[in-house]
Amino acid sequence: MLAVHLENGSVSLRDRPLPHRPKGHALIRLLCGGICNTDLELQRGYYGFSGTPGHEFVGEVVAADSPAWIGRRVVGEINLACGSCDWCRRSLGRHCPGRSVLGIVKHPGAFSEYFTLPERNLHALPDTLPTECAVFVEPLAAACEILDQVPLPCAAEVAVLGDGKLGLLIALALHAYGHRIRQFGRHPEKLAIARRAGVDTQPIGAAPPEMAFDWVVDATGAPEGFRQAVRMTRPRGTVILKSTMHGLVGVDTAPVIVNEITLVGSRCGRFEPALDLLNRGLIPVEEMIADRLPLSDAPRAFARAAQKGALKVLLT
Amino acid sequence: MLAVHLENGSVSLRDRPLPHRPKGHALIRLLCGGICNTDLELQRGYYGFSGTPGHEFVGEVVAADSPAWIGRRVVGEINLACGSCDWCRRSLGRHCPGRSVLGIVKHPGAFSEYFTLPERNLHALPDTLPTECAVFVEPLAAACEILDQVPLPCAAEVAVLGDGKLGLLIALALHAYGHRIRQFGRHPEKLAIARRAGVDTQPIGAAPPEMAFDWVVDATGAPEGFRQAVRMTRPRGTVILKSTMHGLVGVDTAPVIVNEITLVGSRCGRFEPALDLLNRGLIPVEEMIADRLPLSDAPRAFARAAQKGALKVLLT
Repeated sequence: MLAVHLENGSVSLRDRPLPHRPKGHALIRLLCGGICNTDLELQRGYYGFSGTPGHEFVGEVVAADSPAWIGRRVVGEINLACGSCDWCRRSLGRHCPGRSVLGIVKHPGAFSEYFTLPERNLHALPDTLPTECAVFVEPLAAACEILDQVPLPCAAEVAVLGDGKLGLLIALALHAYGHRIRQFGRHPEKLAIARRAGVDTQPIGAAPPEMAFDWVVDATGAPEGFRQAVRMTRPRGTVILKSTMHGLVGVDTAPVIVNEITLVGSRCGRFEPALDLLNRGLIPVEEMIADRLPLSDAPRAFARAAQKGALKVLLT
Repeated sequence: MLAVHLENGSVSLRDRPLPHRPKGHALIRLLCGGICNTDLELQRGYYGFSGTPGHEFVGEVVAADSPAWIGRRVVGEINLACGSCDWCRRSLGRHCPGRSVLGIVKHPGAFSEYFTLPERNLHALPDTLPTECAVFVEPLAAACEILDQVPLPCAAEVAVLGDGKLGLLIALALHAYGHRIRQFGRHPEKLAIARRAGVDTQPIGAAPPEMAFDWVVDATGAPEGFRQAVRMTRPRGTVILKSTMHGLVGVDTAPVIVNEITLVGSRCGRFEPALDLLNRGLIPVEEMIADRLPLSDAPRAFARAAQKGALKVLLT
C-alpha cells in the first residue's frame, strides 16, 4: 500500500505492507486527510520525527473486533492512551504519559492507504455530514478545547488574535457557542470567512486596543502575537495560548504579574462538541479548503500547504 | 520632618515639610517600616522612580476626619483607588486604573516620620499584635493573594520554589491554611524557618521532581526558577508567578501548551487573611527579621537589605 514518508525535511511516497491490526484496533482505509501545521513542523524535523504523518482524517473501517464498525465512515481521536492510568480514569487520556499519538508519536499516521487506531478512539459519522467537512473535526476539537478549560460566562466577549486555520476555527467555534468574538488578523480574505459567519473581524493594524478584553486567544503562532495578547488583556483576565512556538519565547512577565493575568496553554480536545457543531452546519469549513490532491501527490500537497497563507490542503 | 529620598540609585535623607492631609486621609506617624525587594528595585531606577519609598509599615494615626482613628496603631492597604470605577465596585481597587500606590506610584511612601493614607485603607491593630509582626502584613497579604486567585482544594499539595522573604511567607501562609507544602530553596538557614513551622523543605538540588505537582509557586525571582516551575508541574496543573522579573523572560511555551499548564500572575492582596494569620500567631515572622535600624540610618539599612540573602530589614 501507498504511504507518505517524512524524513530529513523531505516528503516521499513509499510502498508499505498492510499494517498489522492489534487486538481492539480497527484497520481503516483513508478517505480524506488534512495537512496541519504540525505535519509541516514534523517535516521540518521538530520532535526528530521520521515516518508516516497524518492525524486529521476521515476513513472507512475495513476490519475490527466489533463487527458493528465494519463499513462505517469514521473520524478518530489521535491519542492512543493506556486506558488505566490516573489520567485515563479521569477521561484525560490526551495527557496519558504512556500515550502514543497518531502520526506524531510512535504510531504511524493516517496519510497512508490503510492505518490502525483503537476502536475506542473512533466516532462514526452520520451520512449527512460530508467527508470534506468531517476532516475538520480534529482541529475544530482543538478549538473547542478552550471551552473545556476556561469557564466563560454566557455570551462572553473574547478577542481572537490570528486568522490562520486554527484562528478561524476558534473564532467560528466560540461564535457558534454564543460568545461575542472580536477577531484580529492580517488577511482580509481569511477574515471574510469568519465575517460571513457573523464574527466581528478587523485588521490587526498598528495599535489593537490595550487592556480591553477579559479573554484573549493567541492563535498567531508568533511570539509578538503572544506579547500583543497580553497587552490586550484586562487585569485579572485570561490569555489562552493556542500557538505552537519553538524554543524560548521572550515574555514580559511584569504586566502578567502586575495585572494578575492568567495564561492557559491549550492543545487538543474532545471530538464530541466539534462533531456536534459540524453536524449542525454551524462552521463553514468548506470555505477553508485551499486545495485537494490525491495521496499519490503528497509531496506537492505538502508544498502547497507550506505556501505562506495557505488554508487547508486535503489529501484524497 | 525626616524622609528617605531615592534618586538615581542613591538613598539619602531629606528634611521635608509635614505632608498636607487631604479630606478622607489620615496623617500617620511611622512606627516601623519594612524594606522590600520592590524598594531596592525602585532604588535601582526601575519604573523611573524618585521620591520617598516605603509601603510596608506600622504607624500611629495622629490626625484624621474620623476621631475614632486618632491614636490607633494601624497598617494600611497600599493602593489608593478611585473608589468609583468598575474595579473599585468589584472590591478590586488594587487594579483601579487611576490608582496611586504608597511609596511606589505618585504617592509619597511610609519611610518618613509622617505620611498620609486614606482612612478607608487602614486596619487597626489589636494590642496583642507586636509592631514588628504587624509590619509583615503587606507582604503576607501578597502571599495570601494566591488563595484568592487559585481555587485550591482542601489540603492541596503545593510546591514553593524559592526561600527568600516572599517564598517563606508563601510557604508559611499556605501551610497555615492547611495545605501540604514542599518548599525548595538554596539556603538551609532560611528553609529552617519554614521547617520549624512544619513545612516540608528540601534543597533544590540539581534535579527537582518533574511533572510532580498540580500547583507550583515560583518565588525565585529568576527566569530559570520560572522555567523549573513549569517543568515541575503536572499536565493541566497551575504555576503561580510571584517573581518580579524585568525585561523579556525566555519561556519555553511548548510544554505549557502540550501539558495545558495554566500560569497565574499574582501581586498584592487583601489584608484581612494576613492579619488573621498574624493575630493567631501562625507565622513566625520574628525569625525573618535580619536587622533593625533607625529611619535616620536609612542609607545603611538599604545597603544591609541589598546584601545577598538578607531577610527583612526594619526601619524603626
